[in-house]
Amino acid sequence: MSNKKIIVAIGGGTGVFTVLSGLKNYPDLNLKAIVSMADDGGSTGILREEFGILPPGDIRRALVALSHSDKLLAELFNYRFPQGGLSGHSFGNLLITSLERITGSFEQAVREAGKILSTQGEVIPVTLDQCRLFAKLENGEIIQGETNIDVPKHDGNLKIERIYLKPKATANPKAIKAILNADLVIVGPGDLYTSLIPNFLVSGVRNALLKTKAKKVYAVNLMTKFGETHNFSASDFVSSIENYIGKNCFDYILANNKKPEEKILKKYREQNARFVNFDKENLDDFKGGIIAKNFLRKGELVRHNSRTLAEEIIKLI
Amino acid sequence: MSNKKIIVAIGGGTGVFTVLSGLKNYPDLNLKAIVSMADDGGSTGILREEFGILPPGDIRRALVALSHSDKLLAELFNYRFPQGGLSGHSFGNLLITSLERITGSFEQAVREAGKILSTQGEVIPVTLDQCRLFAKLENGEIIQGETNIDVPKHDGNLKIERIYLKPKATANPKAIKAILNADLVIVGPGDLYTSLIPNFLVSGVRNALLKTKAKKVYAVNLMTKFGETHNFSASDFVSSIENYIGKNCFDYILANNKKPEEKILKKYREQNARFVNFDKENLDDFKGGIIAKNFLRKGELVRHNSRTLAEEIIKLI
Repeated sequence: MSNKKIIVAIGGGTGVFTVLSGLKNYPDLNLKAIVSMADDGGSTGILREEFGILPPGDIRRALVALSHSDKLLAELFNYRFPQGGLSGHSFGNLLITSLERITGSFEQAVREAGKILSTQGEVIPVTLDQCRLFAKLENGEIIQGETNIDVPKHDGNLKIERIYLKPKATANPKAIKAILNADLVIVGPGDLYTSLIPNFLVSGVRNALLKTKAKKVYAVNLMTKFGETHNFSASDFVSSIENYIGKNCFDYILANNKKPEEKILKKYREQNARFVNFDKENLDDFKGGIIAKNFLRKGELVRHNSRTLAEEIIKLI
Repeated sequence: MSNKKIIVAIGGGTGVFTVLSGLKNYPDLNLKAIVSMADDGGSTGILREEFGILPPGDIRRALVALSHSDKLLAELFNYRFPQGGLSGHSFGNLLITSLERITGSFEQAVREAGKILSTQGEVIPVTLDQCRLFAKLENGEIIQGETNIDVPKHDGNLKIERIYLKPKATANPKAIKAILNADLVIVGPGDLYTSLIPNFLVSGVRNALLKTKAKKVYAVNLMTKFGETHNFSASDFVSSIENYIGKNCFDYILANNKKPEEKILKKYREQNARFVNFDKENLDDFKGGIIAKNFLRKGELVRHNSRTLAEEIIKLI
């Protein structure tokens, strides 16, 4: 048995990529990524449709984040065919699909893809069951499919009342084991209803998080998302995820308190995305530690600095 | 500088695969495969059409032949998507295409694909120029495209009068260097007009073969091919390739003299393919050595035994 500290990142999309690519630089960590299986858009959606496989997209991103191969291989995995019958497909998705077809096992496909990328750590699909994400809006409307919630065709001003999986899905035993054996579990950053909470809708995952002795950390998003977390402040993010897992389920919150420049925010406003205000005054109920600081990466996109994120996570173990 | 003997295999299709997979088991060889760039059928054809790249199919087969990775990776490279928009594409072709798009260089793409497969030796595209193969039949008809010659829609009883490339193509300098520095060059087995001779139509290759001090070996096919080498005997194969390179350009011929079982040949006859008769009496003109023996592999397909082929090649250096 190794004495390496086990950090488990739970999420999906680009958030989990950011966390893992920061933590990867610490060789003494045993990293595990638990990845949502709700994605059904783009290349992933087509492959689910045509091959009936589990969604490869978020798995691919997590694998690339953990890769110690040269940059070209990571670039290859994320390469998207620009034209023809392959248009929109990402190479890594095709690789995972092919490996699944050959081996007959999605998990083995993920492992083999990890070998090719020389990943540090392990990427674990949260469930091996096929399921779809649904959202019930505050007006009663039901939205089917992660991609339709994510890029809303519905009125994005309407709040999501509830999300659920159909059919019900049971946790991958490896995901449960990873959470229970972890020293720290980091949830987020990431789209609340389409990347983070779907993991906890899988039967067994929520209980494992409540049961584990690991330190539990939630990283609040930097920007709101139209149709999903419209006009949310930091406390809204916290109370929303607590609604699904449990009041005060987290030991720590990581929240950004540095506002990006106005010219950058202006571009985001065109997509109805706003800066997430750090409303400390509304977090009085939160019993854990609040780590509020500048988490921004330099650049034109409002993104977490993966190094700062990793540094703050490391301090907690 | 290494003292390893350099063996260069020239061909395309499955023949070059057979030669290389046998020779790969000799660790003390420096193997180089020079591969025809005339293929334009199937997955390769679509990728040429849509991405304007050089044909990846034969490159892929040669890389897999030289691979020392585990079997799964070789299987992955040869995996063909059975359905949907990806139908018929081979994974390895998509990998080479993606790498070419990312790096901007077909040669680098081949090198990087070789790294992933842990290949022993090097695969060299005979030319980096885009060209197509044409055939003029004995009735004057012009057939455009390797795939149309290979799987004839024309009358397959008609002899090919001449094949040529359009536009003209110049040799990859690495191919020339490999031939000049070789200890032995093995040409074939392989489809005469669609896999072997197209290499020698590339400007510079024929001269390099005539000039090199390497031993030059030609492996005669086991079966004829309708529309290409219909009713050919061993001497017809030899004289046809000599027509393009030069009389007595080879030092040795490897020819099979063992007839497969009748029940196997029967299946081949349905595709108008016949056993290639070893007509020693017509090879009196040939000044080099003739190695005639049982080159057959066990099984339902008439194929060269790659081990026997390698053993006989090794004896010549």
